[in-house]
Amino acid sequence: MADVITKRADDYAQWYIDVVRAAKLADYSPVRGCMIIRPNGYALWENMQAVLDRMFKETGHENAYFPVFIPQSFLSREAQHVEGFAKECAVVTHSRLTANEDGDGLMPDPASKLEENLIVRPTSETIIWHTYANWIQSWRDLPILLNQWANVVRWEMRTRLFLRTMEFLWQEGHTAHATKEEAIAETKQMLEVYATFAQEYMAVPVIRGVKTESERFAGAVDTYCIEALMQDGKALQAGTSHFLGQNFAKAFDCTFQNENNELEYVWATSWGVSTRLIGALIMTHSDDQGLVLPPRLAPRQVVIVPIYRKDGERTAVLEAAERIERELTDAGMTVRLDAREAYRPGWKFNEYEVQGVPVRLAIGPRDVANGTVELARRDTREKAIVPQEGLARRVQETLEAIQQTLFDRARAFRDAHTTPVDTYDDFKAVLEETGGFVLAHWDGTAETEARIKEETKATIRCIPLPGEIEGTEEEGVDMLTGKPSRGRVVFARAY
Amino acid sequence: MADVITKRADDYAQWYIDVVRAAKLADYSPVRGCMIIRPNGYALWENMQAVLDRMFKETGHENAYFPVFIPQSFLSREAQHVEGFAKECAVVTHSRLTANEDGDGLMPDPASKLEENLIVRPTSETIIWHTYANWIQSWRDLPILLNQWANVVRWEMRTRLFLRTMEFLWQEGHTAHATKEEAIAETKQMLEVYATFAQEYMAVPVIRGVKTESERFAGAVDTYCIEALMQDGKALQAGTSHFLGQNFAKAFDCTFQNENNELEYVWATSWGVSTRLIGALIMTHSDDQGLVLPPRLAPRQVVIVPIYRKDGERTAVLEAAERIERELTDAGMTVRLDAREAYRPGWKFNEYEVQGVPVRLAIGPRDVANGTVELARRDTREKAIVPQEGLARRVQETLEAIQQTLFDRARAFRDAHTTPVDTYDDFKAVLEETGGFVLAHWDGTAETEARIKEETKATIRCIPLPGEIEGTEEEGVDMLTGKPSRGRVVFARAY
Repeated sequence: MADVITKRADDYAQWYIDVVRAAKLADYSPVRGCMIIRPNGYALWENMQAVLDRMFKETGHENAYFPVFIPQSFLSREAQHVEGFAKECAVVTHSRLTANEDGDGLMPDPASKLEENLIVRPTSETIIWHTYANWIQSWRDLPILLNQWANVVRWEMRTRLFLRTMEFLWQEGHTAHATKEEAIAETKQMLEVYATFAQEYMAVPVIRGVKTESERFAGAVDTYCIEALMQDGKALQAGTSHFLGQNFAKAFDCTFQNENNELEYVWATSWGVSTRLIGALIMTHSDDQGLVLPPRLAPRQVVIVPIYRKDGERTAVLEAAERIERELTDAGMTVRLDAREAYRPGWKFNEYEVQGVPVRLAIGPRDVANGTVELARRDTREKAIVPQEGLARRVQETLEAIQQTLFDRARAFRDAHTTPVDTYDDFKAVLEETGGFVLAHWDGTAETEARIKEETKATIRCIPLPGEIEGTEEEGVDMLTGKPSRGRVVFARAY
Repeated sequence: MADVITKRADDYAQWYIDVVRAAKLADYSPVRGCMIIRPNGYALWENMQAVLDRMFKETGHENAYFPVFIPQSFLSREAQHVEGFAKECAVVTHSRLTANEDGDGLMPDPASKLEENLIVRPTSETIIWHTYANWIQSWRDLPILLNQWANVVRWEMRTRLFLRTMEFLWQEGHTAHATKEEAIAETKQMLEVYATFAQEYMAVPVIRGVKTESERFAGAVDTYCIEALMQDGKALQAGTSHFLGQNFAKAFDCTFQNENNELEYVWATSWGVSTRLIGALIMTHSDDQGLVLPPRLAPRQVVIVPIYRKDGERTAVLEAAERIERELTDAGMTVRLDAREAYRPGWKFNEYEVQGVPVRLAIGPRDVANGTVELARRDTREKAIVPQEGLARRVQETLEAIQQTLFDRARAFRDAHTTPVDTYDDFKAVLEETGGFVLAHWDGTAETEARIKEETKATIRCIPLPGEIEGTEEEGVDMLTGKPSRGRVVFARAY
C-alpha cells in the first residue's frame, strides 16, 4: 500500500511517475506508449471536459464526431501536414486475421489487404475539410463551428504518462469562416478560452503567445499557444489554437459563393487541448507527499474520516460525520465520507493526501463532545480544530482559498523563474542554474533559433502577445548574432 | 433545401436514410463504413450518454479509459473470443509512412513494420482482463466496477448509418467479482438499467431475455439482452449484458485470494450499448414527415418561430417570443427561438418538423394582440391556439404527454405485432404477412435454430425472462421437430 514517492529534489522525473502511480491516475499498458487512465485520472479529465465543453458551447460551438480512420492519400494533400504527421502514424493495412502458417497464432489474412491503407487519425483536419467541402456551398453555410472529443494516435518513441503518449484523448475544434478576419478572431477567442481555463480552473498561470515558424502546427499559418512553467523549470505547451488560412480549403477544394456571387476559398481554424493538461496540473501543484489538486477540478473536494475506538463511540461519530457530509453536499461540494472499517484512519489520511483531495475533515469522540472537527488543507498541510457550526461555509471558503493559493504560488514560482537576459552567456547560465522562461532578443531567423536549440536544448516557446509580458516589446539586438530584434521572445527547455 | 423523404410504405430502408440525412443526424464518410455524426446526431448521443452515465454512477460504477489498440496475440487468448472477432478487425502493421517508389504518394515504411501487430479494439475484454490481472490480488480489491466510453471498430461489410457501422461509439462496462452470484446479479442489474433507459427515456418498449448459445457474445457464459421492434416488423437488439463466468479470468490468469486464503479465478461481466440506439430511436418513432424525438432526449424540446410581415409588427412579436423563450428556459426546457430573417416561417416549420423537435410554438401579430400562441405537437401533428398565460406549464405537460404517447404508440404497435404460433406454416405466414415478434416453441437445439434461420431468415431474438411475456412459460412441442419445449421463445427477422 505504502507507495514511496521519490522527492522532487532527488529525481523529478521519477517523482512525477511516483505521483501518478500513487494517486492511481494512470498505468502503463501492454501496448508500448499507450496508457490506461484509471478512475481517479478519468474523473479529473471528465471535470476538465465539463468545464471546457460548457465554454465551447457558450462561444457558439457544437460537438460532432468524425471517423477515427483517415485514407492514406488524404495525408499528402496538404504539403506541410504530411511532413508533420506521416512519420509517426499507425497504419491499418488489413481487415482480417487468420491462423498463421504454424497454426499457433494469428496473422493478417493476405486476402484482406486493403486497397487503400487507413491511418488512425493523428488529428482530423484532412477528413474534416474533405467533409466541409461537401457541406459548404454559400456564405449562408458559414461559419461552421464544430468541436470533437476524441482519441488520436501519434507514434511517439519516448512516452510519459499523460505528457506524451502514443494515444491520447483530446478535443479538436475545427471552424470554417467566410473571412480571414473572422477566422483570426476565432483563433484568438479560443486561445482566450484556453488561457481562462488554465488560470481559473487549473490554477496554472500561462503566457499567451505565437509560435515561430519552426514550432508551428503542420499546415497552419499561425499557431497561438499558452505556455506553462513546471516546477523543474521546464516549459509545457498547454494548448494551441491555429489560424490555418486557406491551406486546407485549397487542399480539399472547399470554396463558397460570397454575397457578391464570387467563389472564394474558406478560411479555417483548429484548436485543441488534451489529456496532457493532466500532466501540467500534476507538475504545477503537486509536492513530495503526492498529488495536489485545485478544488475547482478535484473529483472529490472533501473527504471525511471518522475516528473511533470503542463501539460506544461509533454511533455518535458516524452520526455527526453523516450530518456533515449531508450539509456539505447540500452546499454543492463533492464529498466522500470514508467509513470503511477495513482501513485505519492513518491509512486513509495518507491515501487522500497522496490522491490530492483538497480538504480533509476528521471527526472523533472529542470533536463530537466539543462540537468541533479537524480541518486539514492539502495545499499548505495546515490543520485546525474548527466548530461544526457554520462548517459548510468555512469549508467552501477554504476551497476557494486553496484555489487562489495554488494559483498565487505557481504564479510566484513562474515570476521568480522568468529572467530577461542580454547576452548568450547569461542565457546559458540561467538555463543551467535556475531554468524557467528566459526572455531574450532574437533576430527572427530559423537559423539562429536552430543553433540555440542545438547548443542549449532551449526552444522559443512563443513570441508573447502584445502586453503579455512587460518589457518584451522594446527593440534590441539578437544575443547571438547582434542582428536587430523587434522584441524579446520566450525561451525555455520544454516537455 | 427541400429534402424529399421517401414514404415508409414505399421503401422503408430508403425512408430511414432520408430521415437521417434530412434531420442532419449523420453522413457517410470517405472511409467506407465509417460515418460522420453531425451536430444534431451527436447532441442526441450526448443526451443519451448523460442519462446512462448518471445511471451507471448511481449503481456504483466509475469511468476509466483503456488503449484503443490491442496486441494481436491477446485476441487468441480466449478461444470463443478470437472466433468472434478475428474475422472483422482493423490490423495496424506499420508505424510510419514514406514516399512510395513512384514518388507520387505514400506507402507504409517497410522499416517501420511492427514486431507485433495491433488490433483496433472491437471490444476491450482482453486488454482489460490483462490489466485486472495486475490490479487484483485479494478479495479486498473486489469488486471492480468500471465503464468506458469509447470508439470501437468491427470490419463490417454491409453498413448502415447508426445501425451497423465499421466504427461506432459505445460504452462498455467491465466488472470483476469475487463470486458467481454477485457477477450474475451485476449482469441482471445492468440489463435492468438498459431496459429502464430504453423505456423511460427512449420511449422504446423492450423485451428482456437471454440469448441462445449461437447468438451469445463470443466469450460469454450467458448474454442477456433487450430487444425492440421496429416499424417494419424487424427486431433490433438494443443492448446486451454478459455474464462472462471465469472465461476471461482464466485466459488472462486473473486470480484472487479469497477470505479463506484460497486462490480463485475472478468472475466477470461486460455490458454495452452503442450509437446503434439512435437507429432504434429513429425507426421506432419517426414518420413520413421525418424524425420524431422523445422529449426526454431531444436536444431541443421547443422551437419558437416568430411571424411578422411589416416592420411595425416585428418589435412586438419578437418581444413576446423572447419573453416566452425566457419563461420556458427558466422552467427547465431547452428552447430555441429562431428569429433568423434569412429564412421564412414556412421553411422553419418544415425544418424543425424534419428534425423532430417535439413542440413548435408560432407567434404572430394576432397572437400578440390576443395573448395567444400556436402550439404544434410533432408526434400527433396537432395544432392549437393556446393562451400565453400559463404557457410554460402547458408546454411542460405537452412534452410529458408526447413522451407517453410515443411509448404507448410503440407499445401498441409491438403488441399488435407479437404473435404466438403453434405450427411452422403459421410461423412462416406471420413472418411474411405481419412480421414482428413470433412466439414459438423450440426444442432447444442449435440445429433447429439454424434450420429455421436458413429457411426463414428469422432468428431467436431471446428466451424471454420469467414473467416478461405472458404465456411463454408453458411447456409445449417444437413447431418443427415436435420435440419437447420448455417454453416459447421470441423469433423475428432482425437488424
